[in-house]
Amino acid sequence: MSEAPSTLPAHTLHICVTCRPKGAPPEAVRDGRLLYEAVATLHADWPGRAQVALNGVECMSGCDRACTVALSGPGKPSYLFCDKTPTAETAAAALDLAAQYAASETGVLMRGDRPGPFRSGILAKIPPAVL
Amino acid sequence: MSEAPSTLPAHTLHICVTCRPKGAPPEAVRDGRLLYEAVATLHADWPGRAQVALNGVECMSGCDRACTVALSGPGKPSYLFCDKTPTAETAAAALDLAAQYAASETGVLMRGDRPGPFRSGILAKIPPAVL
Repeated sequence: MSEAPSTLPAHTLHICVTCRPKGAPPEAVRDGRLLYEAVATLHADWPGRAQVALNGVECMSGCDRACTVALSGPGKPSYLFCDKTPTAETAAAALDLAAQYAASETGVLMRGDRPGPFRSGILAKIPPAVL
Repeated sequence: MSEAPSTLPAHTLHICVTCRPKGAPPEAVRDGRLLYEAVATLHADWPGRAQVALNGVECMSGCDRACTVALSGPGKPSYLFCDKTPTAETAAAALDLAAQYAASETGVLMRGDRPGPFRSGILAKIPPAVL
């Protein structure tokens, strides 16, 4: 495992750990938890971890569109993506997306540039507070 | 009209000016534009305008759930609300909600505390980047 970064990352990748598909039993392990854990395993040794923190969060108001994944960063739009499945492909794509976001001066993520699993299923793109 | 504030407001109330209900003709004046203009009229003389800027934005990815209204602020969650109608009541409630958000240390807006038109229809609550 890499050493912890010496300064706090400026960006955050949020994954809802309580997300579950419609009809999934609430007592079962949540799909959101599975996705978070898959990303966390990759994030531990990820070169971008000094720029992007990983945050497991309980609910981002996308309950009807599980699983949900979000990005936020200083002076950049906040994004909420939905309808994600807890696969290895999605986990890797979430970090690729986060790297794009951190590297972009504006934080704008054009559809055609985004990794496959994140080309669809946007619930929100909220501009930053400072315009 | 009040004088312009001497420093930039730290919070922003975003209203999508391109939002229109499903089936509304695209060439007609958009409901989102009507809502933005109603809020702008109130905002011009609003006591909270030093704390909250108003931003007319083109699309926040809530196109299926017009009209959409969002809030963002430093170190606070970003919210996207949907299914709003361009009425005087909604316009006044949007500023009341923005005042609550600006006054709250955490920026968390509990359902029961929010003005009536904003007690339902949340599309997203995205945590801030700095945790």
